[in-house]
Amino acid sequence: MRDELARFLSKHLEIDDGLEAALSDASLTRSYPKGAILLREGEVARLSYFILRGCVRSYVLKEGVDITLAFYVEEDPVLPIGYGSGEPSGHFLECVEDTVAVASSPELEASTLVRHPELKAACLAMSELMAAKLQESLARYRALSAEERYEDLATRRPDLLQRIPQYQIASYLGVRPESLSRIRRRLSVKRRPA
Amino acid sequence: MRDELARFLSKHLEIDDGLEAALSDASLTRSYPKGAILLREGEVARLSYFILRGCVRSYVLKEGVDITLAFYVEEDPVLPIGYGSGEPSGHFLECVEDTVAVASSPELEASTLVRHPELKAACLAMSELMAAKLQESLARYRALSAEERYEDLATRRPDLLQRIPQYQIASYLGVRPESLSRIRRRLSVKRRPA
Repeated sequence: MRDELARFLSKHLEIDDGLEAALSDASLTRSYPKGAILLREGEVARLSYFILRGCVRSYVLKEGVDITLAFYVEEDPVLPIGYGSGEPSGHFLECVEDTVAVASSPELEASTLVRHPELKAACLAMSELMAAKLQESLARYRALSAEERYEDLATRRPDLLQRIPQYQIASYLGVRPESLSRIRRRLSVKRRPA
Repeated sequence: MRDELARFLSKHLEIDDGLEAALSDASLTRSYPKGAILLREGEVARLSYFILRGCVRSYVLKEGVDITLAFYVEEDPVLPIGYGSGEPSGHFLECVEDTVAVASSPELEASTLVRHPELKAACLAMSELMAAKLQESLARYRALSAEERYEDLATRRPDLLQRIPQYQIASYLGVRPESLSRIRRRLSVKRRPA
């Protein structure tokens, strides 16, 4: 069976056998059960991930309260904050579903790019896309009210509302679960035809 | 006089005369006075910037209220949200100070990378650094209270508190100017030795 990462990348660039072999050497496709913790606060993040199937949540614990930073799903790269810095991580990464992901490390990435510089363009495109998405997330989070954030999420990412438990959606939107229930009730009244 | 962008990049990589000429062709170093608007909501963002001197603020107007998304200073790349998408922009870019910046476009960037693939590694590093900073900003904004955001900013970026008007700092922290004054008073009492 073709390496899952190579199969994904072949949608975007020409993958010959040499490159496919290099990709298998440079990464490791692994399966993680729902609930698996990929990174704990205080640990040094030595691995980054590229999700092939499933969902990973990034969160912090602040005075015992769980605050969701991000959800990552199929074809999302997961770069832990501080990845490659050697500093202890300030956040957790947890599998919200059974997850299949490609793991890599800064050393493996660097040596793969030296041997296969043709991958640089794909890495650059992926990194720029990631930066663009993050800019948009930050703008939305700053500019929208909790209710607007919910409506925006329901429009842009209806799949997340199906896949993720309510209390985690609430923590992602920056509200308490009771407030999310109120928002949902208000919106369902607003949308009901008169 | 050596091109300012080439001078900056030469800190990070070998710049020969051919590459320096290509950089001058691919970009345009421009001066903008304080208050200049580089991008308006509704316009298509055709240019990105790299700041050599000065400060640029990104903001949205929401029901007449000005919400600051980001400040960009020396050696920061400024990629407007939706840059390269052809969609009208949802935000403004304004020079907070007299600013000197290198402007470029997706077409110029692409043709420069074709002719000078050795620049890809620097672009990748810059893009990864930008994504990492954005992840940290988003995590801070989600996880910290307004008072904690102020303390964090005062520790990490004391220069911004000196350079930026108070009401823009308030809007960046997501509080009203009166609340920022209260936060500053509370912290100055807290820090005063007993």
